[in-house]
Amino acid sequence: MSSVPSLRRNLSGDLAQAVVALVEQEGLRPGDPLESLKALAARFDVAVPTMREALRRLEGLGLVDFRHGSGIYVGINAGRRVLANPVQSRPDADQLVELLEARRQIEPSLAMLAAQVRDEAGIALMEESLASAQEQIASGDDALWLTNLDFHRAVAAAGGNSVLVEVLDSIVLVHAEDQREILRLHGDASADYAEHARIAECVRRGDPQAARDAAYTHLDHVVEVIRARRG
Amino acid sequence: MSSVPSLRRNLSGDLAQAVVALVEQEGLRPGDPLESLKALAARFDVAVPTMREALRRLEGLGLVDFRHGSGIYVGINAGRRVLANPVQSRPDADQLVELLEARRQIEPSLAMLAAQVRDEAGIALMEESLASAQEQIASGDDALWLTNLDFHRAVAAAGGNSVLVEVLDSIVLVHAEDQREILRLHGDASADYAEHARIAECVRRGDPQAARDAAYTHLDHVVEVIRARRG
Repeated sequence: MSSVPSLRRNLSGDLAQAVVALVEQEGLRPGDPLESLKALAARFDVAVPTMREALRRLEGLGLVDFRHGSGIYVGINAGRRVLANPVQSRPDADQLVELLEARRQIEPSLAMLAAQVRDEAGIALMEESLASAQEQIASGDDALWLTNLDFHRAVAAAGGNSVLVEVLDSIVLVHAEDQREILRLHGDASADYAEHARIAECVRRGDPQAARDAAYTHLDHVVEVIRARRG
Repeated sequence: MSSVPSLRRNLSGDLAQAVVALVEQEGLRPGDPLESLKALAARFDVAVPTMREALRRLEGLGLVDFRHGSGIYVGINAGRRVLANPVQSRPDADQLVELLEARRQIEPSLAMLAAQVRDEAGIALMEESLASAQEQIASGDDALWLTNLDFHRAVAAAGGNSVLVEVLDSIVLVHAEDQREILRLHGDASADYAEHARIAECVRRGDPQAARDAAYTHLDHVVEVIRARRG
């Protein structure tokens, strides 16, 4: 078991840390523009290539975003503590099962917490994604799978703990395309919707035990389908 | 709620992906040496600075490790799907409480799973860290806090699900130094040891419910101490 990685003591790492501190001090959010590469190099008194290397390091983490011909922006992962590794190989079937079993272990606790805390913004997101799903089922919209992922993220948000939201995001967004494939196989959009609605109902009326059970039931169904598929 | 980030379609990102695929094909593990920067540039038929940028991107993720004067090595996060963001600001007290409450939500499920699965290697790690802790308590060794973090990681390992191990790692390793401060305040090393030993005992005899309760009790104590400290 590896020990805690020591903090990197090198210029590129220190610069990266300084950019993150700058983003935070200025209250910048994902999508906000940063200064130009040149201006950042001048601000931190380093050469442009050194600055670029530090920014590439942050780009790898999704903390900044180079947009060709447009400049540098704050990245989608700014402020997060837990991340899905953005550079990884395609998982095999066993790894996907493991991922979904991990979700089955974690998500019932999140549903339980959601029913205890009932964070308003999180509940609003839950309702929103249920409403979108209903429309998308009716119209046969391909984006249904993303809406369904958003439902799971909204349940985490209703628990009001941002670390748990990030943890859930990391396991929902990792291999999202492959999870989509599973959902396509699982296939029963109406059953999914009913199971989501059941979780939402338990959260709404503040019944932690029932919310947990509903989340178990839902994820059990997903895991069963994959297991069956593998024969 | 942001949607799934689109895959980066640029040379530096594609190269980074190609290096990750190479590491996997060759079965390399963290700490193993990679080819030189020049050799990698030649292999992928790109200029050296382009190759360097792609590697810096991977360095940011802990997927490769530049060692000054020695070369490039496979990084500590190779093969992981979930990561602690390595570049982030120091958390304030509220954020630390949130982190520990997140652990309180997740770790009891992991202890329960550990008692169901009882993965042999994970149980061996649990026993090892308990034995080390006992010695370190007796000798007043400062490294006790790391051993204690390892105990929590070992419980996750005993559940046999590598995604959950990575999730637990990400929330145990994030702000590890600050969590250490909390443990120092919590302060009762013998009580901690007794609570860990209780979790281990429940896992060993395969009692999922008791393992879950023991993990709740342990993390409740930690959260209580921090809340009390904040007054």
